[in-house]
Amino acid sequence: MPAHYVVRSVDRADPEVIAALRAAGVAATHEAAGRTGLLGPAVQPRQHGRAIAGSAITVSCHPGDNLMIHAAVEVCLPGDVLVVTTTSPSTDGMFGDLLATSLIARGVVGLVIDAGVRDIAALHVLGFPVWSRAVHAQGTVKASPGSVNVPVIAAGQLVRPGDIVVADDDGVLALPASTGRAVVDAAAQRLDSEQAKREKLADGTLGVDLYDLRPLLADLGVRYVDRLPQDGEA
Amino acid sequence: MPAHYVVRSVDRADPEVIAALRAAGVAATHEAAGRTGLLGPAVQPRQHGRAIAGSAITVSCHPGDNLMIHAAVEVCLPGDVLVVTTTSPSTDGMFGDLLATSLIARGVVGLVIDAGVRDIAALHVLGFPVWSRAVHAQGTVKASPGSVNVPVIAAGQLVRPGDIVVADDDGVLALPASTGRAVVDAAAQRLDSEQAKREKLADGTLGVDLYDLRPLLADLGVRYVDRLPQDGEA
Amino acid sequence: MPAHYVVRSVDRADPEVIAALRAAGVAATHEAAGRTGLLGPAVQPRQHGRAIAGSAITVSCHPGDNLMIHAAVEVCLPGDVLVVTTTSPSTDGMFGDLLATSLIARGVVGLVIDAGVRDIAALHVLGFPVWSRAVHAQGTVKASPGSVNVPVIAAGQLVRPGDIVVADDDGVLALPASTGRAVVDAAAQRLDSEQAKREKLADGTLGVDLYDLRPLLADLGVRYVDRLPQDGEA
Amino acid sequence: MPAHYVVRSVDRADPEVIAALRAAGVAATHEAAGRTGLLGPAVQPRQHGRAIAGSAITVSCHPGDNLMIHAAVEVCLPGDVLVVTTTSPSTDGMFGDLLATSLIARGVVGLVIDAGVRDIAALHVLGFPVWSRAVHAQGTVKASPGSVNVPVIAAGQLVRPGDIVVADDDGVLALPASTGRAVVDAAAQRLDSEQAKREKLADGTLGVDLYDLRPLLADLGVRYVDRLPQDGEA
Amino acid sequence: MPAHYVVRSVDRADPEVIAALRAAGVAATHEAAGRTGLLGPAVQPRQHGRAIAGSAITVSCHPGDNLMIHAAVEVCLPGDVLVVTTTSPSTDGMFGDLLATSLIARGVVGLVIDAGVRDIAALHVLGFPVWSRAVHAQGTVKASPGSVNVPVIAAGQLVRPGDIVVADDDGVLALPASTGRAVVDAAAQRLDSEQAKREKLADGTLGVDLYDLRPLLADLGVRYVDRLPQDGEA
Amino acid sequence: MPAHYVVRSVDRADPEVIAALRAAGVAATHEAAGRTGLLGPAVQPRQHGRAIAGSAITVSCHPGDNLMIHAAVEVCLPGDVLVVTTTSPSTDGMFGDLLATSLIARGVVGLVIDAGVRDIAALHVLGFPVWSRAVHAQGTVKASPGSVNVPVIAAGQLVRPGDIVVADDDGVLALPASTGRAVVDAAAQRLDSEQAKREKLADGTLGVDLYDLRPLLADLGVRYVDRLPQDGEA
Repeated sequence: MPAHYVVRSVDRADPEVIAALRAAGVAATHEAAGRTGLLGPAVQPRQHGRAIAGSAITVSCHPGDNLMIHAAVEVCLPGDVLVVTTTSPSTDGMFGDLLATSLIARGVVGLVIDAGVRDIAALHVLGFPVWSRAVHAQGTVKASPGSVNVPVIAAGQLVRPGDIVVADDDGVLALPASTGRAVVDAAAQRLDSEQAKREKLADGTLGVDLYDLRPLLADLGVRYVDRLPQDGEA
Repeated sequence: MPAHYVVRSVDRADPEVIAALRAAGVAATHEAAGRTGLLGPAVQPRQHGRAIAGSAITVSCHPGDNLMIHAAVEVCLPGDVLVVTTTSPSTDGMFGDLLATSLIARGVVGLVIDAGVRDIAALHVLGFPVWSRAVHAQGTVKASPGSVNVPVIAAGQLVRPGDIVVADDDGVLALPASTGRAVVDAAAQRLDSEQAKREKLADGTLGVDLYDLRPLLADLGVRYVDRLPQDGEA
Repeated sequence: MPAHYVVRSVDRADPEVIAALRAAGVAATHEAAGRTGLLGPAVQPRQHGRAIAGSAITVSCHPGDNLMIHAAVEVCLPGDVLVVTTTSPSTDGMFGDLLATSLIARGVVGLVIDAGVRDIAALHVLGFPVWSRAVHAQGTVKASPGSVNVPVIAAGQLVRPGDIVVADDDGVLALPASTGRAVVDAAAQRLDSEQAKREKLADGTLGVDLYDLRPLLADLGVRYVDRLPQDGEA
Repeated sequence: MPAHYVVRSVDRADPEVIAALRAAGVAATHEAAGRTGLLGPAVQPRQHGRAIAGSAITVSCHPGDNLMIHAAVEVCLPGDVLVVTTTSPSTDGMFGDLLATSLIARGVVGLVIDAGVRDIAALHVLGFPVWSRAVHAQGTVKASPGSVNVPVIAAGQLVRPGDIVVADDDGVLALPASTGRAVVDAAAQRLDSEQAKREKLADGTLGVDLYDLRPLLADLGVRYVDRLPQDGEA
Repeated sequence: MPAHYVVRSVDRADPEVIAALRAAGVAATHEAAGRTGLLGPAVQPRQHGRAIAGSAITVSCHPGDNLMIHAAVEVCLPGDVLVVTTTSPSTDGMFGDLLATSLIARGVVGLVIDAGVRDIAALHVLGFPVWSRAVHAQGTVKASPGSVNVPVIAAGQLVRPGDIVVADDDGVLALPASTGRAVVDAAAQRLDSEQAKREKLADGTLGVDLYDLRPLLADLGVRYVDRLPQDGEA
Repeated sequence: MPAHYVVRSVDRADPEVIAALRAAGVAATHEAAGRTGLLGPAVQPRQHGRAIAGSAITVSCHPGDNLMIHAAVEVCLPGDVLVVTTTSPSTDGMFGDLLATSLIARGVVGLVIDAGVRDIAALHVLGFPVWSRAVHAQGTVKASPGSVNVPVIAAGQLVRPGDIVVADDDGVLALPASTGRAVVDAAAQRLDSEQAKREKLADGTLGVDLYDLRPLLADLGVRYVDRLPQDGEA
């Protein structure tokens, strides 16, 4: 029999680190973190233009059952992000405006769920941002146990309690709180470097020159021609 | 050989019932109807913030053929919702702005289609709401027979002619007209009860207390701990 | 070993033809072109209400590798559309705001990519329209060769360098530049004819009469009945 | 709240009719039934070369919960086929060798399940044929109510208790018991007619002649040419 | 309006070339052809252990309509492979034992179809090999025009009439007849080289040594360690 | 920049434990392990009737690149199972008969790969069992770094180096070596208990009685009726 826990204590990252990564955004943080931590593209934003970051409170539910989301609310603190998964794939609408109301009251800044949500119109009115696999009104039960604040896998990515979760229009990323400070620094460097490149590219400099790719293209045997050879096809 | 019919007569639900369910929305109606009637999440709104309800005029088409949609227009009355399926899966754009223009002239309030639509920009200008499986410009023919106002299955859900169809940002639901009045009452009760709960949750009451879930969690063997036991993993 | 080329020269269509097809839009152009040239619905607009047309600069990349997109920028001219594919399916974010900045500097009017994009929020700010299979922040390398301006298959559709690419809310279409003028004429005729039909349909004329479909329905054995026969089911 | 029933009584079709449809097979029965009743291709045989037919005992389960399969065994009679669905999509392994052992003891001839099965190797040893959406070892609970012998939708097809279910290497079909005799006759006619055609086709007669399709091809504007016109593309 | 053709004449490759590529198999031919020509993995063998090669007779059908397969039989010659696509995605069973009987009478060696087949058990008895996207008994009509022997796209790959099609347990490949001889030579070289490597690998030589990959791994910064550094994660 | 490692040392489980879990099989081991460790159903056996267990050597590759599989061979020992993933989804054929030959020479007992394989016919001849997401001949490069023996996620499941991997016709499971002994005991108990149940079920005892489910069904409000109430629908 599986053992089920609600773990009350979570080590959270420094709020300044979290704020810095929210500002950096998912793509830059993903690069700064050595291209790790990204959830798959099936979990999508259900609104436009929202960007959040916070500490992960993780929830593992039985499919079609949102009991453990209710159990998780209590251990959330202001600034947290709720990350919900199911033990097998589900698109059921396990989260809606009542749970959002409850999370808002706790100061939770958003939801990442590898399953479905409902009450989309109300969530927009509440201003509560959600990243989910599906939108579906399908109701769920409260009958089977699960866990809160254990490591979970959401959209193919391991998320541990206390991980820094960053989410915006590009998707969702989770990284260990312990690496946060280093990633902030790397992201800042990257954003600086990108800004310099952006200005050059905007002025018409080509990427093949800016990144010095011409020797690589030659090494790889890429030939520049005016017309495609008749016998050579891609 | 399959027999093909255009059935002219449809028993429609009381307009007050329909209006009440549009106001209740898909999620509450689904709950009030005993969690029945919901179409799968693959049929999605192609606009934001629109909510409709009406009596189903059903159409069964051959894939890649919209002949029977044309045949269906004639039997539509003001307030109806057109529900279109194909006899095998299709994403072709079998519906566009001309058909929308024709349906608007008949007073039809929206389209639910387990296939594709096109002319999306024009549909937005016309203000005609659509729930579909796909957006695709792929043209269709008018060559094969089908039926109008027979029971169909759309996105995994049985829809009968005259069913009350409710559609909003959460998806689409169909329920028998005969159950409409009872569902209106159940939905009203549910919405009242939800409003009371919403206020408590907004004030910080926890769902585990509001719904009295602590005994259930204990019965199910969920243990509250400060740290995850080393040998116990989710 | 595969041969890899960057082909510098592309025969582009007449700008007037391109402008006319942008105005006609994807659905009408698809019909005018004999229902050819349409990409599959998996490549979707990542913004609302944008319509573009231009000459295709095609790129074939190794999955997870955007080297050849960088190589392609140089051969782009104002008014071109970049069309990117991978040699096997990929959702990686091979295109972001830096590449968009570079393409804008070259006068490229948009991107069609059978893979992923990232920096969605920045692309919106830049006003650079994108049609893609996915939004994902997943980073890519610059390590494997590919080709620029060879025939590619994007979303199940052959796209040749210099093809006229039309893209709007309905999806993406590519057609040979040589057929452009004829398609413009056919599209104009179609749009005229549709406008006449639209007015009649708006006045309540039925499509079954406008298109003279009643004899066909009768030929196909479709029967009009008031009630569905008990033994006859769809 | 949904109401849940175990319906004990089911009207079963004549065993001779059932035997005749098993012999006719899924494809011929589907044609004889007016091309109705076919489940979608996602539910696939998990063995080769088995063909069954029987009366449907239907089961509607909560996802991840096989309680109602256990409840259904009692109402099965020799010759029945168990048809299992879930109220939302699931691939969990809700059926394995213990349930198969129990069904074999009841004389049930096979399982059709729009979800997952496990113990595949043991099912092969037992000789119990299964058509399922998935093979997955994922365990399920026994915690949520559902129903036995109510109409269900499996793989996009309505299945009513007592329907004649036919399953073989081509998939699964369900049709109302009341139509069985007529379908048997139509299938016999079809098989006779097919045998005559088979012999002619084997002798080299072309289908376009046998079915007299040349006038239709001409009517539809299909032109026979020796070489594809340069400007005419598919 | 689309133009539809049945093209009677197809330039076929040398039978010796075809035989050599059948012997080489799909994987080796794909490599020898510069990693071009491979159909996507969704088109799968419907039997085990069969390997064929032949000249492509291509068919483009309307979805749900097999009229043009019938029209194609006449232009097939012994040794040909029929390659069937639909103008939009379809899983309908447009091919079964009667068409197989007809093709066998013409000497056709197999079918590649980006859609569904049925009568699977009978096809096995006939020994007619099939590669398809689906197995489904869903019947089709004969009502809409299409073309025979025009370029088509099957499973994301361009196939031209007369292309050499190779198919085995690894999937399906098409390559221009004109490149056949060169590919045969390259495949023979590759198979020789592979045999030499196979013997060394069987003797325990490591691929990193055989292919001299250690310098590359070092260049790419891959570090060999006994234990994973605590702060360094993949 | 991501750091890349080949970790040479892996703590392997006791061979007796591994052998016992191979005998228990995936489904029983999954239950005995508290329903943890199961890979998703998309990774499927590519043969019938094979059952393996061994210690996981994990590989993380760039998509379309099998360099790190070559690097992994060296660290494999007899009895190991190679577990390969890619950093983003891929179906490319990154593994074939040469790599299988090399692994067989090392004593590796099988491959689990969340991507594609090729040379299927040769793998069968070699008797080397494979569980994969796809079969595809698509060739890959050796150009990008990755890691060996770091934690990876395969088909939605975390796999750590040294995990006990069990694979059979039901799929694939991974569990920490440290829990192996306890799981063996639990599996033995379960198999004993199942055997007792199997005998009773074979004798006609019903599961609802054997598992004492009648009170639960009553508690859940499931009603036994002879006929479905007219107003009560599922």
